[in-house]
Amino acid sequence: MEKRSYRLSDLSRLLDVPFKGDGTVVIDGVGPLETAGPTQLSFLANPKYRPKLDSSRAGAVIVDPSVEDVGRPMLISSNPYWTMAKAAQLFYEPPPLAPGIHPTAVVSPEASVAPDAALGPWVYVGPGASIGSGSRLYGLIYVGRGVRLGRDCLIYPHVSLLDGCRLGDRVIVHSGTVIGSDGFGFAQDAQGRSTKIPQTGIVQIDDDVEIGANCTVDRATFGKTWIQEGVKIDNLVQIAHNVTIGRHSIIVAQVGIAGSVTLGSHVVLGGQVGIAGHLTVGDRVRIAAKSAISHSVEPGQDLMGVPAMPQKQWMRHYAAWLRLPRWQQEVAALKERVRHLEETLARTQTSTEDESHGNEC
Amino acid sequence: MEKRSYRLSDLSRLLDVPFKGDGTVVIDGVGPLETAGPTQLSFLANPKYRPKLDSSRAGAVIVDPSVEDVGRPMLISSNPYWTMAKAAQLFYEPPPLAPGIHPTAVVSPEASVAPDAALGPWVYVGPGASIGSGSRLYGLIYVGRGVRLGRDCLIYPHVSLLDGCRLGDRVIVHSGTVIGSDGFGFAQDAQGRSTKIPQTGIVQIDDDVEIGANCTVDRATFGKTWIQEGVKIDNLVQIAHNVTIGRHSIIVAQVGIAGSVTLGSHVVLGGQVGIAGHLTVGDRVRIAAKSAISHSVEPGQDLMGVPAMPQKQWMRHYAAWLRLPRWQQEVAALKERVRHLEETLARTQTSTEDESHGNEC
Amino acid sequence: MEKRSYRLSDLSRLLDVPFKGDGTVVIDGVGPLETAGPTQLSFLANPKYRPKLDSSRAGAVIVDPSVEDVGRPMLISSNPYWTMAKAAQLFYEPPPLAPGIHPTAVVSPEASVAPDAALGPWVYVGPGASIGSGSRLYGLIYVGRGVRLGRDCLIYPHVSLLDGCRLGDRVIVHSGTVIGSDGFGFAQDAQGRSTKIPQTGIVQIDDDVEIGANCTVDRATFGKTWIQEGVKIDNLVQIAHNVTIGRHSIIVAQVGIAGSVTLGSHVVLGGQVGIAGHLTVGDRVRIAAKSAISHSVEPGQDLMGVPAMPQKQWMRHYAAWLRLPRWQQEVAALKERVRHLEETLARTQTSTEDESHGNEC
Repeated sequence: MEKRSYRLSDLSRLLDVPFKGDGTVVIDGVGPLETAGPTQLSFLANPKYRPKLDSSRAGAVIVDPSVEDVGRPMLISSNPYWTMAKAAQLFYEPPPLAPGIHPTAVVSPEASVAPDAALGPWVYVGPGASIGSGSRLYGLIYVGRGVRLGRDCLIYPHVSLLDGCRLGDRVIVHSGTVIGSDGFGFAQDAQGRSTKIPQTGIVQIDDDVEIGANCTVDRATFGKTWIQEGVKIDNLVQIAHNVTIGRHSIIVAQVGIAGSVTLGSHVVLGGQVGIAGHLTVGDRVRIAAKSAISHSVEPGQDLMGVPAMPQKQWMRHYAAWLRLPRWQQEVAALKERVRHLEETLARTQTSTEDESHGNEC
Repeated sequence: MEKRSYRLSDLSRLLDVPFKGDGTVVIDGVGPLETAGPTQLSFLANPKYRPKLDSSRAGAVIVDPSVEDVGRPMLISSNPYWTMAKAAQLFYEPPPLAPGIHPTAVVSPEASVAPDAALGPWVYVGPGASIGSGSRLYGLIYVGRGVRLGRDCLIYPHVSLLDGCRLGDRVIVHSGTVIGSDGFGFAQDAQGRSTKIPQTGIVQIDDDVEIGANCTVDRATFGKTWIQEGVKIDNLVQIAHNVTIGRHSIIVAQVGIAGSVTLGSHVVLGGQVGIAGHLTVGDRVRIAAKSAISHSVEPGQDLMGVPAMPQKQWMRHYAAWLRLPRWQQEVAALKERVRHLEETLARTQTSTEDESHGNEC
Repeated sequence: MEKRSYRLSDLSRLLDVPFKGDGTVVIDGVGPLETAGPTQLSFLANPKYRPKLDSSRAGAVIVDPSVEDVGRPMLISSNPYWTMAKAAQLFYEPPPLAPGIHPTAVVSPEASVAPDAALGPWVYVGPGASIGSGSRLYGLIYVGRGVRLGRDCLIYPHVSLLDGCRLGDRVIVHSGTVIGSDGFGFAQDAQGRSTKIPQTGIVQIDDDVEIGANCTVDRATFGKTWIQEGVKIDNLVQIAHNVTIGRHSIIVAQVGIAGSVTLGSHVVLGGQVGIAGHLTVGDRVRIAAKSAISHSVEPGQDLMGVPAMPQKQWMRHYAAWLRLPRWQQEVAALKERVRHLEETLARTQTSTEDESHGNEC
C-alpha cells in the first residue's frame, strides 16, 4: 500500500529532524532492519539491535544522536521510534473511501452528514445524528439516534454507535466494536430474581481516541461513560458503565474494567487485566498483564498479581513461593535436628543427673 | 430520554410501596444522591451513604423502613434498590422502533413475522423462522433458518441468531452477540491433525434472559445449549456447546464456560472466571472474579482462586503467602538458633564429659 | 438437520473401517450413548464409559479393536472418536446456501467471484477481491479491497475480512470475527502521548483453518500475521500483529497472543491463556487454561501457572502452597520447641556449672 516517495532531505524537513549523509537518496517506505530494502527507511530504537543495523540493507536509518556514523544516510532523532511512526504516517496510503453516501446507505432526514464525509454500503444514520467533515464509515455500520461523530473519524465495518453516544474528532473505531451497549445493572428481589435498571446514560469519547476490534463500551446508568483524549484501546476490551479512562491511557487486549472505575491519565493496563468496580487508579499507574486490581491504587505505582501488589513486593513473594518446596525440605531437616537436639539434651540431662548422682555418692 | 412524570402518590401506588410526606411532589426521573435534582427520585440502598442523602438535592427518596424522617418526601421499601429499578423502568422511554418491516429488510416468504413486530434496516429472516408479537430488531441482524423468537424481545444491531436457535419471550440480546456458532469440537488423528465434528444441536434461550454485547453462545454438538429463565449475562462472555445455565444465574463480563458444564440456579460468576469442561456447579454457588473452576462444586459455596477453593480457605492460604518472605527470615533465624544450640550442646557435652572425666580422676 | 441414511456395511466402506455383526442395519445419524436411538450410530471413545454402552439404545456402535462383542453391530476403529467425527460428517446436511449472488449484495466490478460461489444478502466484495469456487458467504459480510478467499470456504454473518487479507481453501470463519484489524502499535513522545504506527501488513490464513466467533486477528505492522494450515481457533481469541501460529495448533476460547509471538506446530493453548510479546513457543507445547507465558518455551513441554512453569514443577509448588497454613503452625511449634530447648539448655548449663562448682568444692 506504500507508493509515495520522498528524498531524505525532504523527510528531514517534514519530520523536523536533522539528517546526515546523502540527502538525495529516495525513500518510498519504512521497514524493520531485517527486511528494509535500499529504498526504505529503517530505525534503531534500542541499542541492543545495533548488529542488525550493520547487516541491514535499509537505504537510510533513524538513529539516536549518540549513534556514530553507520556508513549510510541517517535521520537523527532523540526518539527514533516516534520519528519512525511519523515517517510511516507520511508513506501511509489511507483506505480509498470516496466522499459521499453509498446508494445503499440509509440516512434519516433528521440526521446531518457533512458533504465530504464518506458513508459506505449499508450504513444507517438515525434521526438527530450528525457525522462531521472528513469522517469515513466503511460499511455495515449502525449509527443510532442522536449520535454525534466529529471530524476525520474512521469507523470500520460492523461497528455499533448506539443512541446518544458522542465521539470527538479523529476517533478510530475498529470492526465489531459496540459503543453504548447497556450497562450490566440489575436489582435482585428476595428470591434472587433480577429486574433491569434502565441504562439511560451515554458514552462520550474524546478526540484522538482509538478503540480496537470487538470491544464493548457500555453506556452509563445515569450520566456518562467517558474515554478521554488520546486513549488507545486494543481488541476485545470490556469497559463497563460509568467508567472514566483518563487522557492518554493505554489499555491492552482483553482487559475488563468493572462499573464506576476511574482511571487517571497515562495509565497502562497489560493484557487480560481485570479491575473491580468503583475503584480509583491514579495517574501513570502501570498494571502487569493478567493482574487483578481489587483496591484503589495511588499514582505512579507499578503493580502485578492476583490480587495486585507493588511489583517489587510481588517479586519477593513470588521468589519465596519458588523456594517453597526446597524450603519445606529444609524445615523438615530442621525439625529433625531439633528432635535430635531434644533427645541429646534429654540424654545429657539424664547422664548429667547420673553424674550428679554419682557425685553425690 | 426521560420525560414522563408522576406525582409521588402515583409512584407509591404503581410501585406498591407506601409514601411519607408530600405526595403531590412531581417526579420526572430517577438519579443517584449526588446528582438527583428537585424533580428526581433518589434512593438509599446502603446505610453508609446516609451523609450523601442529607446533602442531596433529590426531591424524594426511597428508603428502608428503618430510616427515620429525612426532611423530604419518601417511598418506604424493604428493598430500596429493587424499588429504584422498578421506578426507573416507569420513567424509561424505550427506543422508538416503529412496528413494521423496514423496506430494506429481507424476510423469507416461508418466515412468519408478527404484524406488530419491528424489523429495522437490513434485517434478514430466513425460511421457517418466526418473530413473535412486539419483538423489535434494530437493524443489521441475521436471523437464520428455523429460528424462533418469542414475544417482546429486543435484538440490537449486528446480532447473529443462527439456524435453528430458539429464544423465549422478553429476551434481550445486545449488539454483536452470536447465538448458535459452532461448538469447538474436533477429533485428532495419530498425526495430530484435526477433523471437524459437525455441530448439529441448537441453542435454547428461555424467557427474560438478557445477554450482553459481543458474547458467543455455541450450539450443541447434539441436543441443546440451554440458558434458562431469568439468566443475565454481561459482555464478551463465552458459552461453549452443551452448557446449561440454571435459572436466574448471573454471569459477569469475559467469563468463559467450557463444553458440557452444568450450572445450577442463582449461580453468580465474577468477571473473567473460567470453568473447565464437563463440571457441575451447584445452586447459589458464587465464584470470585478471575477464578478458575477445575472441579465440580457443591451448592451454596463461595469460591475463589486458581484453581478455586472455598473463599475462607483461600484467604488463609493467601495470608500465609503474604507472610512468606518475613517468615522465611524467621525460619532462617530459627535455623541459626538451632545451629547455636547444637554447638552449645556439643560444648556442654564435651565440658560435661570433661567434668565427668575430671570426676573420674 | 440429519436425514441421510446408510447401511452399516456402506458406512464401513465409506469410513474405511471393518464392521462386525449385521451390516444391513440402517443408520441415519450419530449420537452419544445416552441419547442415540435404534437408527443411530454411537461410539465408545473411553473405556470408562463401557457401562453406558451396555444400557445404550444405539443401533450400532464404533469401538476399539480391544472391545469384545457388545451384542449389537459394531464398526471397529483404532480411533473411535475420529471415526465418529468422519461418520457425523457423512450425515451432516450443510446449510443450504444456493450458489449465486443475492440481489442485495454489492460486488465491485473489479472483483472476481466464482460462478458457483454463494453470496448472501448484504455481502460487500471490494475492488480486486476474489472469491473462490464453492465458497459460501452467509450475509452481512464485508470483504475488503484485494482480499483473496480460496475454494470451499464458509464465512458466517457479520465477519469482516479487511483489505489485503488472504484466506486459503476450506477456511471456516464464524460470526463476528474480524480478520485484518490494525495491530496495536503506537510510539510515545516525552509527554506520554501516543502516535499511530500505520499497520501496513496483512493476515494470511492457510488451508483448513477454522476460526471461532467474535475473534480478532490483527494485520501485521509490516509483513504478515500468519495462521498456518489446519489450525483451529475457538471463540473470542485475540491474535496480535505479526503473530505466527504453526500448523495444526489448537487455541481454546479467550486466549490472547501478543505481538510477534511465534507458535510452533501442534501447540495446544487452553482457555484464557495469555502469551507475552516476541516469544517463541516450540512444537507440541501444551499450556493449561488461564496460564501466562512470559518466557519462550522449548518444544514438547506441558506448562501451567502465572507465570507458567513445567506442569510437574507447578504441581509441586502448588502442593507446598496448600500445606502453607498447617505448615506455618508446625514452624511455630518448632520455634516453641527451640525456645524450650534453649531454656532447658541454659538451665542445664547453669546446673552443670553448679555441679561443677559443687565438685570444685
